[in-house]
Amino acid sequence: MPDDVAPVPPASFSLAVDAMGGDNAPEVVLDGLELAAERHPHARFLLVGDEARLGALLALRRRAAKACSLRHAPDSIPGDLKPTAALRIRGSSMRVAIDAVASGEAAGIVSAGNTGALMALAKIVVKTLPEIDRPALAAIGPSARGDVVMLDLGANLQCDARNLVEFAVMGDAFARSVLGLTRPTIGLLNVGSEELKGDERVRQAADTLRDSLFGENFRGFVEGHDIAAGTVDVIVTDGFTGNVALKTGEGALKLMRDLLRQVFTSTIPARVGYLLARPALDRLREWMDPRRYNGAVLIGLNGVVVKSHGGTDALGFAHAVDVAMDMVTHRFNDRIREGLARLSQVAPRLTDASR
Amino acid sequence: MPDDVAPVPPASFSLAVDAMGGDNAPEVVLDGLELAAERHPHARFLLVGDEARLGALLALRRRAAKACSLRHAPDSIPGDLKPTAALRIRGSSMRVAIDAVASGEAAGIVSAGNTGALMALAKIVVKTLPEIDRPALAAIGPSARGDVVMLDLGANLQCDARNLVEFAVMGDAFARSVLGLTRPTIGLLNVGSEELKGDERVRQAADTLRDSLFGENFRGFVEGHDIAAGTVDVIVTDGFTGNVALKTGEGALKLMRDLLRQVFTSTIPARVGYLLARPALDRLREWMDPRRYNGAVLIGLNGVVVKSHGGTDALGFAHAVDVAMDMVTHRFNDRIREGLARLSQVAPRLTDASR
Repeated sequence: MPDDVAPVPPASFSLAVDAMGGDNAPEVVLDGLELAAERHPHARFLLVGDEARLGALLALRRRAAKACSLRHAPDSIPGDLKPTAALRIRGSSMRVAIDAVASGEAAGIVSAGNTGALMALAKIVVKTLPEIDRPALAAIGPSARGDVVMLDLGANLQCDARNLVEFAVMGDAFARSVLGLTRPTIGLLNVGSEELKGDERVRQAADTLRDSLFGENFRGFVEGHDIAAGTVDVIVTDGFTGNVALKTGEGALKLMRDLLRQVFTSTIPARVGYLLARPALDRLREWMDPRRYNGAVLIGLNGVVVKSHGGTDALGFAHAVDVAMDMVTHRFNDRIREGLARLSQVAPRLTDASR
Repeated sequence: MPDDVAPVPPASFSLAVDAMGGDNAPEVVLDGLELAAERHPHARFLLVGDEARLGALLALRRRAAKACSLRHAPDSIPGDLKPTAALRIRGSSMRVAIDAVASGEAAGIVSAGNTGALMALAKIVVKTLPEIDRPALAAIGPSARGDVVMLDLGANLQCDARNLVEFAVMGDAFARSVLGLTRPTIGLLNVGSEELKGDERVRQAADTLRDSLFGENFRGFVEGHDIAAGTVDVIVTDGFTGNVALKTGEGALKLMRDLLRQVFTSTIPARVGYLLARPALDRLREWMDPRRYNGAVLIGLNGVVVKSHGGTDALGFAHAVDVAMDMVTHRFNDRIREGLARLSQVAPRLTDASR
């Protein structure tokens, strides 16, 4: 990919971290940063929250203390607060951290706090890239053929063809930056793989993606079962469908895990069988560990915004930091800008036609 | 439920059966009917297809021969033919079988043939119930808390609030008839369970379902993970989301099965462990057997229309016949009519407002 983008002055901090968001904040956040600081020795974190409390916790964590600078924020946003109400709390740790991204002081933010508030604040304060109509929520999950990126996961419940094409551009950039793929394959989620399936919206998006943008790396329509099969690296869909699909897949895997647990405790031979198979089963468990996939990303903004699961532990939080660091290090937003520049050259008409 | 519906003259045949549809037709169909005839000793089947070939096969199947009457159809519909082309083959086994439903000669049809053709033919020939805007595709699947009905699974990619409410009425009737539930609980699939989530369409449908139609049996919004959790008996959604959710869940379960197979053959202790746990694992396998859930139903028509999976075996086909027989025996369409009569009394405004 050509390096035709003007260099941006480096931010003072790799990431701003909302220390007060999540079920077990700030302890889990600090433990996560202790792990992250070991993995990313050159990273600098702007740690935002209750200064006195954070200072005491940092004193016990040598690596995190070295990597972090403290910034006081008097308030925090409760997990169940409506986004509109959250926007009014100017002294919240999430808000102060996001302000640091908007000012260019930090390259991105990681928060385990209120998802709706983070999305609303990020859109309003960090702002959408000028070339993008709407930011999207993306995440990585396991499949039979390696990790898969899916977006949108709920930021935009109704999408037009233009939005879907933008999601594909952003998903492509995300797979390059975070999965390290050089030429990710892309599929558009639909009810069948034949070209005539689906509504006008997905067919129009597919035409643009195939004919103008990704060529043969766009694999056309994919179906629900292609997500777990790993047929493509990037699955593109609207936020309603993506959110339902993500949770449906997670629910099916949870059902299977619960049933296996019952099976392996149901009889004495089954218990013994479990003990024998346990090392192999543990590798499977590790491979599917949700903490390895922690970190949903709001992409299409003037900065990196990563949402950690609220109930994660230190290892999960450190993974969310990994995702953010990959995006910062691999110039994620530059890649998006490059993709969007190609889009405006090849498919200006889509913009007019679908609005 | 009041029996205020005028009695309909009984059909001469319980079901018309498309003998030539599916990957292994007509043998699998005949073997399936041999099983079905044992389970439903009073059922009469109108078996439609190549008369000479079917006659020879019936001669080898005592029970099926007793339960079936033969009707010749010179043609069959290829699995990959477009619905518009399929409509023109007037002598196809599917068409002749559907004609028998439209004329009232048979109460319903079971076919393992081309899904698109069956849906198109059924809508045009059997026709939609006068009170229904659009028929829907429904099926039953396993969950942690018993069987769950989901609809629409792809008949209607775009739905308005009125369609979703009608789907709920039809899903309720289906759960009563086929699952034998007296008061099924109903949920509307959405991106969150809070009342303010989702778009106008689902919120308007939820208001009608809660306030006017099902009272507390309508459990409000459910999310993707609630499908496998079995939070409600009936999951209502549009055909695009339902199709993707169904296939995503199936794909996740398949991934898990494939990975377990790898785990249990990866080491010698794991192989031994598998042998010990096998009886318990077999019960799980049996419980999730896709053949037990064979038979998607196109509901909202003047007759029972059941689509068997094209690649199923005799046991699976017999299950599809079970579903159709339950719908016929438990007056499925009368229950829908009763539900729709209540709907027109309590929510006539929804019809006006959403069109």
